[in-house]
Amino acid sequence: MSTIVSVETRDIRFPTSLELDGSDAMNPDPDYSAAYLTIRTDAADGLEGHAFVFTIGRGNDVQVAALDTLRGHLLGQDVEALLGDMGSAWRLLAHDSQLRWLGPEKGVMHMAIGAAVNALWDLKAKRAGLPLWQLLAGMSPDELVALVDFRYLTDAITPGEAVELFRAAEPGRAERTAQLLEQGYPAYTTTPGWLGYSDEKLERLCREAVADGYPQIKLKVGADLADDRRRFAIARATVGPDFPIAIDANQRWDVGAAIEWVNALAEFDPVWIEEPTSPDDVLGHAAISRAIAPIRVATGEHVQNRIVFKQLLQAGGMDVMQIDATRVGGVNENIANLLLAAKFGVPVCPHAGGVGLCEAVQHLSMFDYVALSGTMDGRMIEFVDHLHEHFVTPAAVRRGRYVIPTAPGAGTEMLAASVDAFTWRGAHVGRVPA
Amino acid sequence: MSTIVSVETRDIRFPTSLELDGSDAMNPDPDYSAAYLTIRTDAADGLEGHAFVFTIGRGNDVQVAALDTLRGHLLGQDVEALLGDMGSAWRLLAHDSQLRWLGPEKGVMHMAIGAAVNALWDLKAKRAGLPLWQLLAGMSPDELVALVDFRYLTDAITPGEAVELFRAAEPGRAERTAQLLEQGYPAYTTTPGWLGYSDEKLERLCREAVADGYPQIKLKVGADLADDRRRFAIARATVGPDFPIAIDANQRWDVGAAIEWVNALAEFDPVWIEEPTSPDDVLGHAAISRAIAPIRVATGEHVQNRIVFKQLLQAGGMDVMQIDATRVGGVNENIANLLLAAKFGVPVCPHAGGVGLCEAVQHLSMFDYVALSGTMDGRMIEFVDHLHEHFVTPAAVRRGRYVIPTAPGAGTEMLAASVDAFTWRGAHVGRVPA
Repeated sequence: MSTIVSVETRDIRFPTSLELDGSDAMNPDPDYSAAYLTIRTDAADGLEGHAFVFTIGRGNDVQVAALDTLRGHLLGQDVEALLGDMGSAWRLLAHDSQLRWLGPEKGVMHMAIGAAVNALWDLKAKRAGLPLWQLLAGMSPDELVALVDFRYLTDAITPGEAVELFRAAEPGRAERTAQLLEQGYPAYTTTPGWLGYSDEKLERLCREAVADGYPQIKLKVGADLADDRRRFAIARATVGPDFPIAIDANQRWDVGAAIEWVNALAEFDPVWIEEPTSPDDVLGHAAISRAIAPIRVATGEHVQNRIVFKQLLQAGGMDVMQIDATRVGGVNENIANLLLAAKFGVPVCPHAGGVGLCEAVQHLSMFDYVALSGTMDGRMIEFVDHLHEHFVTPAAVRRGRYVIPTAPGAGTEMLAASVDAFTWRGAHVGRVPA
Repeated sequence: MSTIVSVETRDIRFPTSLELDGSDAMNPDPDYSAAYLTIRTDAADGLEGHAFVFTIGRGNDVQVAALDTLRGHLLGQDVEALLGDMGSAWRLLAHDSQLRWLGPEKGVMHMAIGAAVNALWDLKAKRAGLPLWQLLAGMSPDELVALVDFRYLTDAITPGEAVELFRAAEPGRAERTAQLLEQGYPAYTTTPGWLGYSDEKLERLCREAVADGYPQIKLKVGADLADDRRRFAIARATVGPDFPIAIDANQRWDVGAAIEWVNALAEFDPVWIEEPTSPDDVLGHAAISRAIAPIRVATGEHVQNRIVFKQLLQAGGMDVMQIDATRVGGVNENIANLLLAAKFGVPVCPHAGGVGLCEAVQHLSMFDYVALSGTMDGRMIEFVDHLHEHFVTPAAVRRGRYVIPTAPGAGTEMLAASVDAFTWRGAHVGRVPA
């Protein structure tokens, strides 16, 4: 038996705003950051659990404060009991009635709870000697369903239906695992499409993306329609008429504006429009989806929890689900999201990029392929080639596909040297608005 | 010209869990708390702006950290410029792209922004020598509409429509102000209905509520149906068949359970069911509202922002709007909420209680009466007789009506002695879950 003896947090910020990498219509100068959590035990194995919340700079200290406030829930816990019942581990954190008031189940506090849950999964996977995707894909349907909090979901999916979905995918798990390890998982790239880049850089990066074997690229839009039309035309001319190009407005528009703007870009044949409006606007997404069909609506990176995902699906406002590894309440809540997508027959194409999001979220898609959806059709994981060098097991893409991670853990551990080098020491790298 | 020279925060917690005051189906042991903000300037008048976020204990430190992170936005600002354009003051805080990532517009960071906005309103009202409600009710329709961020609202209400709503209420402002000052504003009481109370205490408090002149009481429900039926029967027998009794489930149920439970209490004639399910579940509220009519659905104390309020109205999921003074982005966003309620013809009955929520939210209902809805029909403000003694200008109710505040400010300033006495010094008053 072992005990959690240390819960350490760090405020880590990378000065990405200096390069304009990651600039979009709503986020002109992000400093990619991580509120980073390390859980240590007194077990002889010396294994640690690592996880983080991704932020874009200011406020990363608030996210760290939220992680700090979970220390009392974790310190002294029996590790084997906690890791042996991860459904209860989620409830220990997410159902704390006083902390719940700060959401409920949304924003800073919920993301912190998600990181704590994910750090436990990292530790559990390391103890099992398996990458997280494979640990999950080896669990029984009943074990998997026990991880999920069905509160507020039962009008869309019941635990019994969830068990049936997992059972239906049990045949072929071994074959799909072998196929996954051999072939990898499809990726698409956002690297060409940031708003801060010159037309020449856009064109060069589009050409490189095709040459590198990516099956799809994505362009940021929404700041200026004339610019968007010019940039989309350049991208389309560069990649050819049949190559899928997604567009991403990062919540820039109201409902009416979204419909007009997307229709004004329709001639360039976007495969989806991502985050056309507020991630909270279920009915707005549904109205947009109806008005721009057959162009699809994709969203999720800012969807706060399973309850909003549920409604986006119920209302027909989400044609592509983009889960994020650090926005919701961790692996457990993302399994709920994957179940909802399976129930409603919507493909999951996770949001990634930032710091460590590729490393983390890939496990969920790979688990989904082996144990739930059983298909890669229309599925791919976003890839941005930034900041991977700071991770112990960096995500890697070859010929447009994620290389399947085989190292034990959830992929969320940063290099100690990077943690030390980029720990925030109080100077603002980004600009404070005047 | 003056400048903001100090932004001070305090973590204030009252040990209310020891008394079971405030216990409900989701919040068994709240420690009513305030993340408290004081803004000071170098002006000779010595006036300060005070505001807070209400929480229920653990995590109040996270909320304080969120207030602290706004210091850089406020310190050194030109006070006259800031207070002279409160629409821009909101945008300065709510549109910070890096902080926005932590929501967007929800949870800890958004509530902190709301408190900063409210502290500026408190200072502005004190400088004007007016209570906040009267300061707002003296502004022109154009000035009021300039306070509101219409982003994500224009599919439901445009700035032009908002101006028209305010203009339509301009005639009669003076008469309604005089009437308000003379007659007060209707209150209802939740004091009898907490789950932790004995049947004898419930009956006694119901009797007292009627004797005190309240036009409505509210009971907490949702922990146990047999208990709810027994308690509701006692309350109904005590107050008589025609007296309005609201019930409040504090988000306890899934959609199907809400419909069954409320219908199982229908014989006791509840006037509304409050928070039947997750505050995020717009479609769920709409389904419940359809299935339990003519019993009305009330919600709002945990509704994160104007975008969710908009949808609850669009979907027919909210028959009574319960704004909260410290959940959304402050006075500015609550004016947006009042406009949405006016547009959709739904009465606003604010959530109050906690620490200082009565003191703060009353100003919004009174402003609404004078300058927007122009009516008190079906409107009332919740009142709970707790912790008012800690405020410089405590809310007061006489004969079931709020006494109209006339002191300058927003009502949100606590007594210095209370701030000192209840500043948190690290011992957990509430219980940490095992």
